[in-house]
Amino acid sequence: MSNAKWNNAVASREEQHEQKRLAVLEAGAKLFNDQGYERTSLDDIASALNITKRTIYYYIQSKDEILFECMKIGLELSSKILASSADRTVPPLERIRILIDEYINWILTDFGACMTLLRVSALSPERRAELNRSKFTLDERLRNLIREGIEDKSIRPCDPRLASAAIFGAMNWLPHWNRSDNPVPNSNIRAEFTELFVTGLSSNGHDL
Amino acid sequence: MSNAKWNNAVASREEQHEQKRLAVLEAGAKLFNDQGYERTSLDDIASALNITKRTIYYYIQSKDEILFECMKIGLELSSKILASSADRTVPPLERIRILIDEYINWILTDFGACMTLLRVSALSPERRAELNRSKFTLDERLRNLIREGIEDKSIRPCDPRLASAAIFGAMNWLPHWNRSDNPVPNSNIRAEFTELFVTGLSSNGHDL
Repeated sequence: MSNAKWNNAVASREEQHEQKRLAVLEAGAKLFNDQGYERTSLDDIASALNITKRTIYYYIQSKDEILFECMKIGLELSSKILASSADRTVPPLERIRILIDEYINWILTDFGACMTLLRVSALSPERRAELNRSKFTLDERLRNLIREGIEDKSIRPCDPRLASAAIFGAMNWLPHWNRSDNPVPNSNIRAEFTELFVTGLSSNGHDL
Repeated sequence: MSNAKWNNAVASREEQHEQKRLAVLEAGAKLFNDQGYERTSLDDIASALNITKRTIYYYIQSKDEILFECMKIGLELSSKILASSADRTVPPLERIRILIDEYINWILTDFGACMTLLRVSALSPERRAELNRSKFTLDERLRNLIREGIEDKSIRPCDPRLASAAIFGAMNWLPHWNRSDNPVPNSNIRAEFTELFVTGLSSNGHDL
């Protein structure tokens, strides 16, 4: 009993630590996105949180670690997108619509924006390789959905690799122009982008 | 006569100076794109050209000046695109096709890539404002072409601002993935991208 209590207390302290660590990562992501990775110091992040640099080291060891963890969180969210576009009973174009919709939702968060606004060259080669593998998985999913659609004739003949690159490019560019005091609402962007790309891929009205 | 000779000699020296200055800018653009603006020094650029830093100062005063000049050259090329998509006797969708095709051709050069790979926050506010005005002109052209197409019913109803943002996003993202030892040929990218976006905008086969 007392042991369980102690364990619970520990769990709660760990939870608290984890929450504060997440706050550090979020503040870091926002500052990296706003002013660039190179131009942001651990002091800046501490100031943004009203804590000392000494306190920050309790949660995180280096700027590099913040960057990597931010990107990892982004990629974990992206694995949710993989799951929701995985149902093979749903037609390819519909699954593409879901993928685009959810990816946009994610890329417009601070963690998602990190993936596209920051150059991963600041990371060590190992960490970079890990991130690249995960990014590749999402790209591969979209390419495969396009291939499926070409096979079942719902999608016009095209190069799945380049179509996927165009779609991810348009989405990855969003944080470059929509991080302002008066951003275009997510829902408008999602509606317009899904329509543009689903229409662009669709074989409807295309000369076969 | 002797005066004309002297003037010619001066012109030729100026030309030579201009050529070497362009070589400095090109080397700068390539290094900024490859390793980032912050991480590139004037020494790196001098080394890439096999010249001394002292020689570089004969052509350029600062890293900031190189960045601004690179972006300006990029924008001058982009004004050519404005001209070639200006002919109002050509249907809007066809002019959009031309704009996309030429923009891609340009963004895949080192000067074009500078515009998208580098953050202009490194520039002074005045220079930034000047660049933003020029960028806005291209975006405005595409929006207006989309508006024209919606009016003449060749383009499906959509938000011209967001459609333009999607198209420029896809194109601006190109240097982020196609700067490799084995890049996808420009011509393939241009063919696939124009088809995807012209089909995506077109009212053909779209439920009106």
